[in-house]
Amino acid sequence: MSRLRDRFDEPVSPAMERFASSLDVDLDMVAEDLTASKAHARMLGEVGVLATDEVEQLLGGLERIGSEFVAGEFVPTTSDEDIHMAVERRLTELVGEVGGKLHTARSRNDQVATDVRLWLKARLARLSEALNGLVSALVARTESDGRILMPGYTHLQRGQPILLGHHLLAHAWAVDRDRQRVAAATSRVDASPLGAGAMAGTPHAIDRRRTAELLGFGGVVENAMDAVAARDHMQEVAAVCAIAVTHLSRMAAELVLWSSAEFAFVRLADAHTTGSSIMPQKRNPDAVELVRGKTGRVYGDLMSLLTLTKGLPMSYNRDLQEDRRPLFDAVTTTIDSVELMIEIWSSLELAAERFTAELAGDPSLATELADALAETGMPFRQAHRAVARLMAELAAAERTLDTLTDAELEGLGLEPHHRALLDPRAAAERRTSLGGTSWSEIERQIALLR
Amino acid sequence: MSRLRDRFDEPVSPAMERFASSLDVDLDMVAEDLTASKAHARMLGEVGVLATDEVEQLLGGLERIGSEFVAGEFVPTTSDEDIHMAVERRLTELVGEVGGKLHTARSRNDQVATDVRLWLKARLARLSEALNGLVSALVARTESDGRILMPGYTHLQRGQPILLGHHLLAHAWAVDRDRQRVAAATSRVDASPLGAGAMAGTPHAIDRRRTAELLGFGGVVENAMDAVAARDHMQEVAAVCAIAVTHLSRMAAELVLWSSAEFAFVRLADAHTTGSSIMPQKRNPDAVELVRGKTGRVYGDLMSLLTLTKGLPMSYNRDLQEDRRPLFDAVTTTIDSVELMIEIWSSLELAAERFTAELAGDPSLATELADALAETGMPFRQAHRAVARLMAELAAAERTLDTLTDAELEGLGLEPHHRALLDPRAAAERRTSLGGTSWSEIERQIALLR
Amino acid sequence: MSRLRDRFDEPVSPAMERFASSLDVDLDMVAEDLTASKAHARMLGEVGVLATDEVEQLLGGLERIGSEFVAGEFVPTTSDEDIHMAVERRLTELVGEVGGKLHTARSRNDQVATDVRLWLKARLARLSEALNGLVSALVARTESDGRILMPGYTHLQRGQPILLGHHLLAHAWAVDRDRQRVAAATSRVDASPLGAGAMAGTPHAIDRRRTAELLGFGGVVENAMDAVAARDHMQEVAAVCAIAVTHLSRMAAELVLWSSAEFAFVRLADAHTTGSSIMPQKRNPDAVELVRGKTGRVYGDLMSLLTLTKGLPMSYNRDLQEDRRPLFDAVTTTIDSVELMIEIWSSLELAAERFTAELAGDPSLATELADALAETGMPFRQAHRAVARLMAELAAAERTLDTLTDAELEGLGLEPHHRALLDPRAAAERRTSLGGTSWSEIERQIALLR
Amino acid sequence: MSRLRDRFDEPVSPAMERFASSLDVDLDMVAEDLTASKAHARMLGEVGVLATDEVEQLLGGLERIGSEFVAGEFVPTTSDEDIHMAVERRLTELVGEVGGKLHTARSRNDQVATDVRLWLKARLARLSEALNGLVSALVARTESDGRILMPGYTHLQRGQPILLGHHLLAHAWAVDRDRQRVAAATSRVDASPLGAGAMAGTPHAIDRRRTAELLGFGGVVENAMDAVAARDHMQEVAAVCAIAVTHLSRMAAELVLWSSAEFAFVRLADAHTTGSSIMPQKRNPDAVELVRGKTGRVYGDLMSLLTLTKGLPMSYNRDLQEDRRPLFDAVTTTIDSVELMIEIWSSLELAAERFTAELAGDPSLATELADALAETGMPFRQAHRAVARLMAELAAAERTLDTLTDAELEGLGLEPHHRALLDPRAAAERRTSLGGTSWSEIERQIALLR
Repeated sequence: MSRLRDRFDEPVSPAMERFASSLDVDLDMVAEDLTASKAHARMLGEVGVLATDEVEQLLGGLERIGSEFVAGEFVPTTSDEDIHMAVERRLTELVGEVGGKLHTARSRNDQVATDVRLWLKARLARLSEALNGLVSALVARTESDGRILMPGYTHLQRGQPILLGHHLLAHAWAVDRDRQRVAAATSRVDASPLGAGAMAGTPHAIDRRRTAELLGFGGVVENAMDAVAARDHMQEVAAVCAIAVTHLSRMAAELVLWSSAEFAFVRLADAHTTGSSIMPQKRNPDAVELVRGKTGRVYGDLMSLLTLTKGLPMSYNRDLQEDRRPLFDAVTTTIDSVELMIEIWSSLELAAERFTAELAGDPSLATELADALAETGMPFRQAHRAVARLMAELAAAERTLDTLTDAELEGLGLEPHHRALLDPRAAAERRTSLGGTSWSEIERQIALLR
Repeated sequence: MSRLRDRFDEPVSPAMERFASSLDVDLDMVAEDLTASKAHARMLGEVGVLATDEVEQLLGGLERIGSEFVAGEFVPTTSDEDIHMAVERRLTELVGEVGGKLHTARSRNDQVATDVRLWLKARLARLSEALNGLVSALVARTESDGRILMPGYTHLQRGQPILLGHHLLAHAWAVDRDRQRVAAATSRVDASPLGAGAMAGTPHAIDRRRTAELLGFGGVVENAMDAVAARDHMQEVAAVCAIAVTHLSRMAAELVLWSSAEFAFVRLADAHTTGSSIMPQKRNPDAVELVRGKTGRVYGDLMSLLTLTKGLPMSYNRDLQEDRRPLFDAVTTTIDSVELMIEIWSSLELAAERFTAELAGDPSLATELADALAETGMPFRQAHRAVARLMAELAAAERTLDTLTDAELEGLGLEPHHRALLDPRAAAERRTSLGGTSWSEIERQIALLR
Repeated sequence: MSRLRDRFDEPVSPAMERFASSLDVDLDMVAEDLTASKAHARMLGEVGVLATDEVEQLLGGLERIGSEFVAGEFVPTTSDEDIHMAVERRLTELVGEVGGKLHTARSRNDQVATDVRLWLKARLARLSEALNGLVSALVARTESDGRILMPGYTHLQRGQPILLGHHLLAHAWAVDRDRQRVAAATSRVDASPLGAGAMAGTPHAIDRRRTAELLGFGGVVENAMDAVAARDHMQEVAAVCAIAVTHLSRMAAELVLWSSAEFAFVRLADAHTTGSSIMPQKRNPDAVELVRGKTGRVYGDLMSLLTLTKGLPMSYNRDLQEDRRPLFDAVTTTIDSVELMIEIWSSLELAAERFTAELAGDPSLATELADALAETGMPFRQAHRAVARLMAELAAAERTLDTLTDAELEGLGLEPHHRALLDPRAAAERRTSLGGTSWSEIERQIALLR
Repeated sequence: MSRLRDRFDEPVSPAMERFASSLDVDLDMVAEDLTASKAHARMLGEVGVLATDEVEQLLGGLERIGSEFVAGEFVPTTSDEDIHMAVERRLTELVGEVGGKLHTARSRNDQVATDVRLWLKARLARLSEALNGLVSALVARTESDGRILMPGYTHLQRGQPILLGHHLLAHAWAVDRDRQRVAAATSRVDASPLGAGAMAGTPHAIDRRRTAELLGFGGVVENAMDAVAARDHMQEVAAVCAIAVTHLSRMAAELVLWSSAEFAFVRLADAHTTGSSIMPQKRNPDAVELVRGKTGRVYGDLMSLLTLTKGLPMSYNRDLQEDRRPLFDAVTTTIDSVELMIEIWSSLELAAERFTAELAGDPSLATELADALAETGMPFRQAHRAVARLMAELAAAERTLDTLTDAELEGLGLEPHHRALLDPRAAAERRTSLGGTSWSEIERQIALLR
């Protein structure tokens, strides 16, 4: 029976034991739990609550549990109630009754809150690094292949010719904001709840700033009830992840599209492609489909975390135990997805000729004529109307824009030399407004993103 | 390297291998995969695609894999690509090249769709049974304790006196609809996709109705592309689960409330209660808090499954592999939660005297006076107004309703004998309208729910 | 001040008045509220609670309020507290104090529950009709254009040649299940809560079955507390809508794709297409983009409705007022989306030649060779491997399948006559297994869906 | 027919017109649209694209449209296609063909992106102010009533005695983080997309930094495609709102609870309370129930916004039009909820005697004994065990802690003077650790939050 059931006549039922266990998830934060316990023990020694030799015994025991865990010799089980009780149980086996002193001036409530924050800080750092890597991969692609001319799409219709780099950097800027959000979320994760006790603090003369310092936290949670009840930092992290994977889903959906026979803009590396069990010719873009497919998973995690605390009164409620599963899943899935996208962008082949094919005379050059007319002084709306009518006529006659005669140009109000405007690369390079698709603007952005 | 990568130069990257694996989830449906393969082999034999001895060999091999799996001797690994390829690999080891004939006229697309439907049918049956059990537990409580008089709440304010059975059966009827929904969802799960191939069917002269029959399906999915692309039956199951756990969350929140010192209506069994690591007196209602806490988990699963297929073109896309994790989690969590609630309702202690305490003279009897006035012919709205004013005066004077004088009753338009209306049990028993809180109506509902 | 604030010293604050109002949404169910009130009045007369002339007065007044509302002369305002109080206020103005008798034996709790169920029943009928219309539109397209040969996709890669009808009917079957779900949800909506009162029933000798009958309900909600507390029927409807719009989003995304210059399979009607404010050539498939875009809206509505009742104790709580906005939005959005998709499918142009282009010699015929090898007795897995290797060689040499020499066929283990297998239409028609892409199977399904 | 349908033969269908309209939502940002247009016109004049008198005409026209809109004389209709086209239509009516020049070098894509960011910036400022107000209201309550002694809860069980101020500030700190998140989200909203055009920039020599400056933006969106495609800033805002309303839902649920007859800790002001249509005595805490009820609404909005862009390829797609409804709803609902909570906290009555009732001898003092034992050197775990056993015995004997005899204290290992530890206020005040419930710590936090 659990170490905490002294006042109970009966053990928990087997169904309850299974239902209540969070062992599978908590095993992921054994290291954090030991780290936090060591800092707590050390502080208790420094303020005189524990004697020096007691602290030494506890630290030695905790150290050994860490080694045992890595070696697979320390295996918490559901009968331990939870990971914290498992550690305390093993600690007492190793160092005797002094093990029972470790829990002075703390509660599982602040202990688990601390563990999760330690876990999160480490993973957010890794996520941040991964997002940096993804920005770099997109920038590197832009540097190597960014001058490829391609149709720019709105509504999945060809709109105006652009450079591939313009398109790639649109993705890069989105990822740039993701890393800003990770930093912002980290600032709210980075505070120590340790020493808050159950929710009221403790009469022991502990030093919470010292444990925060030992654990590398930037500060402490200022209110003990808030320290154990707050889950908004987790919800924020899950939201940041949900937004990030949404960006990935846009890239991924695009790469699925670009891998189709109809687009054939890219060829994913073999390393990210699989075959069919029945159709021998298949090269399926599984990697990006999976990235897209995991989007909903992170949305689900976020929704779980929000719903979790909806309408919960203060302070700690056991519902909150359900926080780690969706939180850890959201963060891990996002890191894995970002890291895979780095691989994908770095290894795929771009079919430059397919991107550029059929841009000569393409309807997507129509804006060039409207803009030219506007520059002659014609109101843009009127210019738009005139060119729209021309485009409808050409479409009906199945003619492309490069078949325009001088007479037709003049009929529109332009001159033969305006035909030069219809060169697609020139059209792209002409867009030199801040953030436009010209190469100079792309280079400016590369410098900013680096 | 995977058995399907014959046309690839490179293996998948390690990151991709991890990312793409669904092994952890799929291990849960090894039995279903083997069952489906056996039915497929048997049918292929019956229609003459396989020779009798080939069928025997395959069946023998599949049988043995089943035993090996149970014994922990057959262990699929991520290098197997997936569970289906792992089975085929092992099968070929066991029976030689004929193992490669099993995949005739089927694809992993229809195979996995079949496995999941088999898995689901079995769990929905169990969920249905659990919901029946929960209705029974609530009905049993009603039979044993349903006459306890208690305040009926709206807005968590005492409204009118009711019998506990009335309250319990309100929960039971909600669960009754949950089991209806499970049945409805099952009818859409209960169709065999096997033999649909990749999405176009097969030229082999197979008999899909026969495999459906062998597998116990009620019918076949009529269109091969639909067979591999459909996920709405999973989304429906997840929605049914989400609604069911919402009902559980309402019961659970109520039991948390009723376990508080302030209400003290119930005492959960030790089996569903835990202590605090720091506060020695605590008896926390963890079981019901966890039931409430898992609500969001199922919402998240539903949201994941919906998002998964949003905007996906036909037919199978690798995204769909992400279906099992949320589906299995939603169904398993719901079953576990329902089963635990059965235990909880069956074992908790009801504090009859606390339910009934302070109902004499309680403001919640005010409706009795308004109804009585309405029966004298006074418009109900006018009666409501008169009694509301009286109640405000009593509240200001800190008087209860049983202190009403004859003069006050007459001032209201009633007579001294109307004081009898203020007996709380009589007030509850008077509500004999269909579905009202009188015991006769409760008994009528018990008969319907049984 | 509201008619119900007799015991309050102060009015609600302006912020509260705005916050608490659901007038904008409730105006949508004025007709239902009047219908329900008439049935209640008639029943009260039949059971003798009201005199015949009182009933006549009430019915006359309610009738007139209906006319006034249609004519814009009866305008509820936020100071009415809600629509029900507004009707009662106007009724009393019209018929005098007898108006105050209408509320005998009912509460706003059962009244609003009744109104919403009436509203829902009517809209679910319309949704059902719309879904029928969509199945019909897809079947009609199949009948007129279903023989068009096209690539069948998995992973958005060309897999095997199919007939367009096979693809269209895959969508139709999904919609068929949506209409099944609407019917199932309707069965749970179709019960009358009227007469449940606040949550405990009433001592008045009312006849709930009679009001149910007058209102066309299939039955009554059997427990009065359940009658006012239940929201699962709304959650179920929202879930059914969410699943239905997910299906629409798949069609819509496909039509966006098929409208692109790269696919160019379809041309949406002008009626469903818009231009660009800047690019004169654009024909954007806005209609289907909007259908896809509204998917998330319905998901959001579902999530709102689920969260709404999470953890709420019995019975009615004011939170529940927030049910109509998401419910009405989900249902209305779904009906509108389905109706628009009917228009779209019925009016778009199919570019038969684009669907079929480049299928001759296409890699998607590779399965034909593997299947042929399997029929010679070679295990399918081995056949798959041999053809996969061949396909890789052809791809490297940039050759199509129709360039295969006799020697190559024989090298594979086939014979020259097997070349006939590579005709794409024959490949599609060969798939005669139940649900396969052959025309005979498509015709069979048309008969089932009609 | 719309001004942009020059190349179309047919108008959009009526169903499409209704379906595609976002007028109802867009009317909320007419002011922002006019402001943005004025800045654009002014800049076009400054860079020489428009002549000075043209700019004057445009500015005059736009100014007048603003007045007309406020006066109800300018009424956009669905036949205008959208609000931007409505303004351009009216502008041309007012100033003639020069009105058609306003759209030079911009597209609706960047225009609407700009409008929404302007709208958002203003509302986020107001939300921030409201959150400040809520922190202030909680701090003010703490100053006036924070010394009230009350039970501190975990698991809704009485845990340890605390001061009310400790509890109130736990809420305040959560709101403090909400305002941090609003500030962080604002930083990503605060960049101008104006001048990005359709997605490629423009060849006109515009000055995007100048329009940004005129509009008060802190910067520009650096990539034109990102400028029109990005929706993550909206998703972030919705997430921030979802987290904030979750905090409100916790307060609200607590106030519902505290308003119950069983707790009776608070009495909401009449201004936030309503009656029942049937039960004359009722004082329902509607205001806080509604705040709790609206939580799901904001979750739904967030889910809608995330789903909206899931899997969307670059750049603008018409789906994105569905962004404003959920975004505006989330922000407005959150502001209204926060503002109402300020009113509620500022006006409710606290029943000090109810908070403190029954704390003498309460089991929630058990930790005092365990802590005292730990201070004698007994390991805390052992102390916990000893006290837990004592508490079980007392509970069985229905005794309170203040009945402990000297002998019992000594049996436990304590001395008679330790009985002083059982004074509940002393127990609270003893918790002077950082963030503990002592008044000194509360005062420290007040200073930080001010």
